[in-house]
Amino acid sequence: MKNETAELMKLVRKKRPLVHHITNYVTVNDCANITLCAGGSPVMAETPEEVEEMVGHASALVLNIGTLVGRTLDTMIIAGAAANRKGIPVILDPVGVGATRYRMSAIRKILDEVKVSVIKGNAGEIGALAGAGGRVRGVDSDGLDADPVETCKALSKKTGSVVVMTGAVDIITDGKRVAVVNNGHEMMASISGTGCMAASVIGCYAGCTDDMVVASAAAIAVFCIAGYKAAKRSMGPGTFITNLKDEMANLTPNEVIPLANIRLL
Amino acid sequence: MKNETAELMKLVRKKRPLVHHITNYVTVNDCANITLCAGGSPVMAETPEEVEEMVGHASALVLNIGTLVGRTLDTMIIAGAAANRKGIPVILDPVGVGATRYRMSAIRKILDEVKVSVIKGNAGEIGALAGAGGRVRGVDSDGLDADPVETCKALSKKTGSVVVMTGAVDIITDGKRVAVVNNGHEMMASISGTGCMAASVIGCYAGCTDDMVVASAAAIAVFCIAGYKAAKRSMGPGTFITNLKDEMANLTPNEVIPLANIRLL
Amino acid sequence: MKNETAELMKLVRKKRPLVHHITNYVTVNDCANITLCAGGSPVMAETPEEVEEMVGHASALVLNIGTLVGRTLDTMIIAGAAANRKGIPVILDPVGVGATRYRMSAIRKILDEVKVSVIKGNAGEIGALAGAGGRVRGVDSDGLDADPVETCKALSKKTGSVVVMTGAVDIITDGKRVAVVNNGHEMMASISGTGCMAASVIGCYAGCTDDMVVASAAAIAVFCIAGYKAAKRSMGPGTFITNLKDEMANLTPNEVIPLANIRLL
Repeated sequence: MKNETAELMKLVRKKRPLVHHITNYVTVNDCANITLCAGGSPVMAETPEEVEEMVGHASALVLNIGTLVGRTLDTMIIAGAAANRKGIPVILDPVGVGATRYRMSAIRKILDEVKVSVIKGNAGEIGALAGAGGRVRGVDSDGLDADPVETCKALSKKTGSVVVMTGAVDIITDGKRVAVVNNGHEMMASISGTGCMAASVIGCYAGCTDDMVVASAAAIAVFCIAGYKAAKRSMGPGTFITNLKDEMANLTPNEVIPLANIRLL
Repeated sequence: MKNETAELMKLVRKKRPLVHHITNYVTVNDCANITLCAGGSPVMAETPEEVEEMVGHASALVLNIGTLVGRTLDTMIIAGAAANRKGIPVILDPVGVGATRYRMSAIRKILDEVKVSVIKGNAGEIGALAGAGGRVRGVDSDGLDADPVETCKALSKKTGSVVVMTGAVDIITDGKRVAVVNNGHEMMASISGTGCMAASVIGCYAGCTDDMVVASAAAIAVFCIAGYKAAKRSMGPGTFITNLKDEMANLTPNEVIPLANIRLL
Repeated sequence: MKNETAELMKLVRKKRPLVHHITNYVTVNDCANITLCAGGSPVMAETPEEVEEMVGHASALVLNIGTLVGRTLDTMIIAGAAANRKGIPVILDPVGVGATRYRMSAIRKILDEVKVSVIKGNAGEIGALAGAGGRVRGVDSDGLDADPVETCKALSKKTGSVVVMTGAVDIITDGKRVAVVNNGHEMMASISGTGCMAASVIGCYAGCTDDMVVASAAAIAVFCIAGYKAAKRSMGPGTFITNLKDEMANLTPNEVIPLANIRLL
């Protein structure tokens, strides 16, 4: 999938997909900037009066429940329905699902009312959603009792969405095909927002192809290669987040081909 | 206008104007920090119960609709009216106006109920407000069909506000005088928040003089010189945003005099 | 208190306390990241439906009124009551109290309904709360008319909370014991969010001991040593905020012992 990744990377930079986010206020600035670095154009809008119209301009919609409140959940449903009608992909980041009943019921409501193209979470979140004993501590994964690949497949079959489980190794599946990405660096876990930014990058790539497995695997591979390169020249989490944006913007398709470690199981 | 810029820069750093922001949650941290770097003091407050009192302490009010919701619009009107009664300048950043009907109606409501001193936007936003065929894609300008200077003049005459159109070249006008600033660097478009930060810097400068054309031109020139210097030593958008703050804080009036490229048409 | 500081620092990194924040949208990202750098795990949640359950996972609760609105105040009371029932510490950051009547009444409501373990503010904020003529300009201290140590003691006696007054020298007291921390660097005042981050670090340390004077003094000393080290290699506020995170993450207990300047009065 190396060549497909490089080709999709070029396409994203050419098309500059508008990615509409309804997201949390902790990492929103990083999401906006990583979208720009990936080649997309970010927009954040979350009042019910305008989201349908804003979705009308967009190539993808990213929903992130990191600091969800009730009125924003309602707006997510409106925006998600508009995205479905328009036929653009919806990426769902179920931040902290499993930590509280509220987050679980919010995600269930979204999944009931919106056709979600990609669900991206850590092992705890995906495990909790799959009913596979995922453990979540605040917004961090605290592990999973079941087999990761089978858990992702089960959640994909249950929801009809492509499932992306991030971690030391990233798993992407539509329930049949399974891609495993083995790029990245442990420093990516040292900052807040890595997962949120990954969803934004998936939004950019998903806005430029119909194949959500390829879009997700390519996005994760590119983001993780940038993370690896950034980590190699960073002294700590502060310089890492800065360098991650530089590397994401400067990475070339030619560099990505030899570095992308994507296996199809 | 080079000497006036340098003098105003000194005055801002001496007076440390308090700039009250009601703004979006994407770039708010950058706005707070650039205000400090420019020599001002930022405060963000947006609950209706306190904005009038907070405006009472402030030297300028910045209103930014980037992630506007209904209750915040109401608060902006209250704060704007208080600023008008007190006689401090109101800077309006119509982020994404032209992208949705909601944003247009929100800006019209603000302009109907508040006397706005400075409207600052990109070509698409100013063009949309002026009814001159401005195109907006999310929150980015997608161009303008009409002459930029004439569009700014027309909007200024229509609103009574000084109009600032940012871009590769920045135009500032009160409908009669026209200043053109030719500083900056294309890297300023590679990050989220450049426009929002520009409005914060205008807020600092507008809080220290009665001449809104001079305040806006000086603020834009200083900010763009800092942007240019930052770009020259940045590897990408991550280091750029970091260096921009350093350069903004370290820039001296003596450096600005030879570098400021402000023409009066 | 040098050895206690080093020991507590080790304990925080081992326990990785979950610190639940209900905070402002200006500096929230810095709060999340500094919590990670200090060794804790941040979570931000602020909808009334879930805060009680989220507090159930947490080791400390940080309440910050920087951009407070009415519904968030209600949620803070719910979360604070849950924290009291569970017996975890509540850290209160009364940002800008003294600037508006709304902020004063919000803080009084919190102090009436929640047992607060630590109140951390600048001289103006603590002075305003103590009724000792603290002056606040927006969210910055504009000085205090009374003796700082006596003001802190008075507020501590009035509230039953440990009081932390930050500034060039930091004062920590429970009304009887008084610790003075003389670390840090003036560059810490050049960025937005230093005070908010200090509260997050206190949250991490308070989540790992029952002694709130030790927790607060140790947290402030560690944070200020990181600030000093960061300032020494920074060119301005942009690189400083980046380097502060690196230094906070990389600081070792062995380095802290000779550098911590904590006196018991």
